[in-house]
Amino acid sequence: MKRIEARVPAGISSFFAICDTDSSGKPLQDPLKIGAIGGGFKVLPPVKTAVEVEEADKTSIRIYVNGKPEEASTSLRVAEKIFSRIKENFNVTVYHEISEPIGAGFGTSGAGALSLAVALSRAVGLNITLLEAAQIAHVAEVEAKTGLGTVGGLLSPASCVITRKPGAPGIGLVDGITVESEVTLIAVYFGPILTKHVLTDPSVRKRVNSIGWSTLHSILKNPSLECFLSKSMEFARESGFLTPEVERVVEFLRGKKGVIGYAQNMLGNCLHIVVEKNRSEDLIYLLKEKFKKAKVLELKPTTLTVELK
Amino acid sequence: MKRIEARVPAGISSFFAICDTDSSGKPLQDPLKIGAIGGGFKVLPPVKTAVEVEEADKTSIRIYVNGKPEEASTSLRVAEKIFSRIKENFNVTVYHEISEPIGAGFGTSGAGALSLAVALSRAVGLNITLLEAAQIAHVAEVEAKTGLGTVGGLLSPASCVITRKPGAPGIGLVDGITVESEVTLIAVYFGPILTKHVLTDPSVRKRVNSIGWSTLHSILKNPSLECFLSKSMEFARESGFLTPEVERVVEFLRGKKGVIGYAQNMLGNCLHIVVEKNRSEDLIYLLKEKFKKAKVLELKPTTLTVELK
Repeated sequence: MKRIEARVPAGISSFFAICDTDSSGKPLQDPLKIGAIGGGFKVLPPVKTAVEVEEADKTSIRIYVNGKPEEASTSLRVAEKIFSRIKENFNVTVYHEISEPIGAGFGTSGAGALSLAVALSRAVGLNITLLEAAQIAHVAEVEAKTGLGTVGGLLSPASCVITRKPGAPGIGLVDGITVESEVTLIAVYFGPILTKHVLTDPSVRKRVNSIGWSTLHSILKNPSLECFLSKSMEFARESGFLTPEVERVVEFLRGKKGVIGYAQNMLGNCLHIVVEKNRSEDLIYLLKEKFKKAKVLELKPTTLTVELK
Repeated sequence: MKRIEARVPAGISSFFAICDTDSSGKPLQDPLKIGAIGGGFKVLPPVKTAVEVEEADKTSIRIYVNGKPEEASTSLRVAEKIFSRIKENFNVTVYHEISEPIGAGFGTSGAGALSLAVALSRAVGLNITLLEAAQIAHVAEVEAKTGLGTVGGLLSPASCVITRKPGAPGIGLVDGITVESEVTLIAVYFGPILTKHVLTDPSVRKRVNSIGWSTLHSILKNPSLECFLSKSMEFARESGFLTPEVERVVEFLRGKKGVIGYAQNMLGNCLHIVVEKNRSEDLIYLLKEKFKKAKVLELKPTTLTVELK
């Protein structure tokens, strides 16, 4: 039996625009061209994916997420794409270990897909580059409708990610803002948001996309961390994604020392706050006291990409 | 006084082709389009650049490399490009701290330029993205003739870098191979090579470039670490860069356990060896015993990019 583990940072989304049509509005067919523009943060703890493989007569795959068996449609697609490129058969067991909340704008499915593509291709002896593995993960996400621009963003050289042009890794263009090691990130999480119906409504999509692109342009005119966060927060407000719970946290933060800025997770009922490291302990204490129903997490911005064990 | 420190991995080059002409052979004028294809490794310890700035009536800049005042033409160009974009004047002191040998294919000038561009722009309040800072560093390297593809490679999401398309960051295309944390890198350094005259000779350039591109194509057909290293070593041999000292180390390594592969630094009288971590201590001991005139360094492959302090 062979075991390979890959670790990929989680990826918080702060704003976005969906890019799945061409300039005339016609739906794009090539999943490598479909994507998103937007921005967010690469953070630790990472999503860890361990893969165990054994040669077999027929390929089989079992997937566990935090110890529980799951269908995990994105991961299943990643595996299928890798198996379509080799002749051998394997029994595969995948163990995703995810610290951040799932389905709440932490990019866990994208990070899971990328770590799986890297670990599984290595485990079965399929030699592909990191961008090729990332393209497999990107297409799996697009097809399974779990994400659009996450995988590309996770390959950004910066911890505060800006995706300037949409598309799969190697096709889109990722940029970012360097973040000083003296700051850290706190997430205050109240739960997921049911937004799939919102994002399929054409008029809502159009409005959100227009706000998303103008957010990108404003940030690129003045690419500082403070501007990134305040424009992303405006995006949440104007797009209508801002939730009452997140708004209460924003009010609570007013005047708190050391807070550099904050934005709502896209899409999750969750606020991510960038704060000076020496103030984070106190702020976490206060947030836990005040918002007892929330999960309060400390996350570390990182410029790491994929680590293989 | 404001002080900002940025850390960027060093970048070993294993093979390359110079890309400074268009398809018809005409010299490219735009330094953002000039570049190189090739491959190598991002490694720690990083190049550290601390910048101290104070407002002044007239801008002045002093540069120290490992404590000694230096002209540092690439760094000077980076600073000039940043000052051309702001109105204020500053007294600037730059402290580059470099562990790897300088001028021997460790990408120290590229890493120095990138860390300076990030730290100085931040220190003087010029808000630019990481790619914009990296483009400043790239152009400074091209103009000062200290490097062509290093800065882009340092932004690769992988630790084993493959630059597939030349050009500045955001224009070229960097890819790579993920490297398992169980391996490490040893460099055996005998000194720099005087190669500038070789690289300006048109017939030598043509031959080196042809071998460089075919090395890239061979690696992309089978992108494993082993293939990357053996094809890079072939590049050193066929291009004529292989030195007698490096060849002696290669002979010495024959049959040594845990050695995954090796290649010669481009351009330096230095061999970099990828080795299983649990064998590295013994191998370093043996190499130091055998090659008393060499400097033997252990380096850590990394996927980190820029860190700001």
